[in-house]
Amino acid sequence: MTQDLAPRLDAAAALTEARLSRALAGAPEDGERLRPERLMAAMRHGALAGGKRLRPFLVLESAALFGVAPQAAVTAAAAVECVHCYSLIHDDLPSMDNDDLRRGRPTVHKAFDEATAILAGDGLLTLAFDLLAGEDAHPSPAVRIALVRALARAAGIGGMVGGQMLDLAAEGRFDGGAPLALELGAIRDLQAMKTGALLVVSCEAGAILGQADERARAALLAFGRALGAAFQIADDILDVEGSVEAVGKGVGKDADAGKATLVSTLGLDEARGVLADLVAEAQAALAPFGARTGTLAAAAAFVAARKS
Amino acid sequence: MTQDLAPRLDAAAALTEARLSRALAGAPEDGERLRPERLMAAMRHGALAGGKRLRPFLVLESAALFGVAPQAAVTAAAAVECVHCYSLIHDDLPSMDNDDLRRGRPTVHKAFDEATAILAGDGLLTLAFDLLAGEDAHPSPAVRIALVRALARAAGIGGMVGGQMLDLAAEGRFDGGAPLALELGAIRDLQAMKTGALLVVSCEAGAILGQADERARAALLAFGRALGAAFQIADDILDVEGSVEAVGKGVGKDADAGKATLVSTLGLDEARGVLADLVAEAQAALAPFGARTGTLAAAAAFVAARKS
Repeated sequence: MTQDLAPRLDAAAALTEARLSRALAGAPEDGERLRPERLMAAMRHGALAGGKRLRPFLVLESAALFGVAPQAAVTAAAAVECVHCYSLIHDDLPSMDNDDLRRGRPTVHKAFDEATAILAGDGLLTLAFDLLAGEDAHPSPAVRIALVRALARAAGIGGMVGGQMLDLAAEGRFDGGAPLALELGAIRDLQAMKTGALLVVSCEAGAILGQADERARAALLAFGRALGAAFQIADDILDVEGSVEAVGKGVGKDADAGKATLVSTLGLDEARGVLADLVAEAQAALAPFGARTGTLAAAAAFVAARKS
Repeated sequence: MTQDLAPRLDAAAALTEARLSRALAGAPEDGERLRPERLMAAMRHGALAGGKRLRPFLVLESAALFGVAPQAAVTAAAAVECVHCYSLIHDDLPSMDNDDLRRGRPTVHKAFDEATAILAGDGLLTLAFDLLAGEDAHPSPAVRIALVRALARAAGIGGMVGGQMLDLAAEGRFDGGAPLALELGAIRDLQAMKTGALLVVSCEAGAILGQADERARAALLAFGRALGAAFQIADDILDVEGSVEAVGKGVGKDADAGKATLVSTLGLDEARGVLADLVAEAQAALAPFGARTGTLAAAAAFVAARKS
């Protein structure tokens, strides 16, 4: 990690955690009768459990390109993180990936129970849109509704939820049990939906918050797409090469499941080459913003090189 | 059911189903790569399976009070129905209420599988906000974001998700297995959150779409609260008196679970008295709208008298 990046990642994480803590406090907000303690505890377990907070960081840094201060972007950042945390809680469920460990701690259904974990995920997904609808997300209703639309598209049928469906199908869950031999294009679609879409919208959110012109928005979308693809290849490489201790969750699961990944399809060396190309592509996409993009460029390199 | 109500309920249901069918079509929308077939089939199973479509009806009728045409309100109505259908899919899951039957058909996890049912619910919840964010929900971004806020509050921690959490806790799931002996106020809180909030927001949505003044919005909120409470008492009575054939789902489940309901707490006769009072209260709340409210008043009576 470069010298510059670490403190900015930490600052974004701290700011986002503070916003999430406030949203997940025990006292009812306007229009709420009460907040059930068990639900709140499970939501906090799933959302305040650390993690790199990469998506909030991308929201804050992309917003900064347009002069939007971190405090003015943090509610949108927290909303994106709610969607990310909800997806982890649901993906970890016994009927999905059946994971006991997440960020080195018990998953929500292990720490609580399955029903509570489902509700905690549902609650976080709903909270994301509640956050975006509030005036502290942005003073302009037009900006807020554009954020809602972009996040709903990234999270929904053609994005994250659809990607998780494709992922389960690829494992052969519904067709007699054998993993599907996916072709490269199908693996890329799956990953772009399951993981990429939320990373892309994290970058796009900055352009929306900054009321950027179409060219700037397109540049951030291109950056996000390359970064998202790099992120997933790095993840596949980590699943082959990482250790449980460093990664904080189970590794070797893809190979055990006979899952088609870019690494299993391309081989480790070629996958590393594609990864390097994607980092370069992400950094090149930032060209229109000139010299202000050091942190985002470093983030692309960091995503590719991370060990957890 | 009065002569007037039946055709209006049917028309609202048909209009809403058409809008939902369009939203759940197989072809990807803007910003989507593809729509996984299995996910779409499960979402359609859960959302196009009939039902009274009471919530969409309330959206359309409350909007009509302000001269909003059904076609201009139907996207918001479909969004509310998406939230309702998602909640049914998740509530039916084995780890929640473990129901095999819904509207006389297999529940989504029986017709598909548990993971697919969780994702179908997640997809419908996300779709609700996607629908509200689109321009066909309303031309004004301020109106659309107000709808997002109201729906998120009704569906979230202090509304439906929180209510389901309280309901599971009331069954004694987390405290040694014995159902909690809830007091009347706690039962009312639980029901207002679990069932009431979405009925209330269905009525409030009409006021938001119609850009109504505070007095009109407050009147519709009061109507919705009384209607929601009446709906739940009627449901409790049906659980005691109804037949599986008419209700289309399991009955007698509350008593079997030793669950505290208004019927078990007040007795059947007093519960019927409270129900009649609530219908009168709902109808009285409509007074500011004068003579235009025949259909909504009839709906309150219908909700109390329904046999399924």
